[in-house]
Amino acid sequence: MKSFAEKQMNIWQVNRSKVCVGLDPDLKKLPECVKKYKHPVFEFNRALVEATGDLVCSYKPQFAYYAAYGLEDELKMTIDFIREKFPDVPVILDAKRGDIGATAQMYALEAFERYEADALTVNPYMGGDTLKPYLERTDKGVVVLCRTSNPGSSEFQSLVMENGRKLYEEVALRAEKEWNKAGNVLLVIGATYPEELGRIREMCPELTFLVPGVGAQGGDVEQVVKRGSRKSDGEGLIINSSRQIIYASNGEDFAEAARKAAIELRDVINSFC
Amino acid sequence: MKSFAEKQMNIWQVNRSKVCVGLDPDLKKLPECVKKYKHPVFEFNRALVEATGDLVCSYKPQFAYYAAYGLEDELKMTIDFIREKFPDVPVILDAKRGDIGATAQMYALEAFERYEADALTVNPYMGGDTLKPYLERTDKGVVVLCRTSNPGSSEFQSLVMENGRKLYEEVALRAEKEWNKAGNVLLVIGATYPEELGRIREMCPELTFLVPGVGAQGGDVEQVVKRGSRKSDGEGLIINSSRQIIYASNGEDFAEAARKAAIELRDVINSFC
Repeated sequence: MKSFAEKQMNIWQVNRSKVCVGLDPDLKKLPECVKKYKHPVFEFNRALVEATGDLVCSYKPQFAYYAAYGLEDELKMTIDFIREKFPDVPVILDAKRGDIGATAQMYALEAFERYEADALTVNPYMGGDTLKPYLERTDKGVVVLCRTSNPGSSEFQSLVMENGRKLYEEVALRAEKEWNKAGNVLLVIGATYPEELGRIREMCPELTFLVPGVGAQGGDVEQVVKRGSRKSDGEGLIINSSRQIIYASNGEDFAEAARKAAIELRDVINSFC
Repeated sequence: MKSFAEKQMNIWQVNRSKVCVGLDPDLKKLPECVKKYKHPVFEFNRALVEATGDLVCSYKPQFAYYAAYGLEDELKMTIDFIREKFPDVPVILDAKRGDIGATAQMYALEAFERYEADALTVNPYMGGDTLKPYLERTDKGVVVLCRTSNPGSSEFQSLVMENGRKLYEEVALRAEKEWNKAGNVLLVIGATYPEELGRIREMCPELTFLVPGVGAQGGDVEQVVKRGSRKSDGEGLIINSSRQIIYASNGEDFAEAARKAAIELRDVINSFC
């Protein structure tokens, strides 16, 4: 069985894509044509995955959209479907977990045993000791929030310490120097902050970055690719798009439209590589 | 319908207790006698709640223990049972949510509509804009992580900014000056850091603190009460204990033993008030 890091490296090359599709199925935005099914969210995801599996480097289901409506079963069905249909494509469960050690062990069980995700997003605020239960899973990816894409992310993440570094730089430094001993750590860096992305790339030359915020949130793809790619091999980026792809059309052609949007994003990204 | 803040103030007085029982039911630690039931976790919680409902100021189910094993139904049944049997006792869902605005709205739905919790723990790392969907629920409690009880919590929370403040102080300051406009914000401060608890009480004279870390984690109750209580009315503390109460006995007397442990903690706390 390949580790997350091996799967990720392989799929970048096989699919020649840095696109991650965010599976954030808002019940209020589902196309009419899937509403007739017993599991409308799963059917929506299934069609999206079938239409894009050869175009992506990963899928990222956002936990909140399932949890809000008690759709844990459809989340599990979605991840199972991806593993069966596109076993080479990693699944990043976006749940931004963060809690003390004993509780973090439970969250690791949830992500990696119950849902069988390949990677999990986690929040570093509580400190490195709270990340241990995830880091010990050397076969999985641990995606640590660093500089997030939202407008207010500067409020704490860009606070300057007395040593001159910003908080997000402290997080990046720990990831690079301490947490990544098994090569299973990634960082979340928003596309909306390209200068910071470049700065973190200098600090962490080999880490992979999960980059949300292109498309609806306004991040600039060219800047992301130029400043965020690894110097060593031109890889190192997982560029997420959710709304722009999964809601490309609201009609019966939603999957086809998602395919077109994914091709477009893949090609725009690759044009800057 | 009372707001969370009103419920909290009322129950402190009615039950004369600052004890919060953490409902963290680890499947591996359940007493044999509940394992025969169809819903062993719910039966465990039900017995604990029946035995302690007149002794506590709140219950705090820890989401991870349910999510690890797909026990969302038993979490819901537990919260429903508390609301039915002890409608005056608030339920704090401990899920430490943190995500961008659109996603945070989904987490607010999950906590306050699906589970009908009275309050939710949230992580501030992503910035104040990500807390808005919770803060807008003025009838609910928004419990923001500030200085957590784990050994490694200093790693980021105690970093000193160039303005001389520590990160957790920046969080406390925002809570006091910006987020608490509707009087619905609380802070998590670990009992394991009594000096910081005192410092934050000076900064936030009227906020309520959720204090984990007494008992198994070693926090000193006397220090917590003396440094953390509000000067105005002697209240302002929700002191959580999980393992020390819910696993006080592993036998058929587990609920009775939990009652004794809750009385003991309540009385120790009150002896310092």
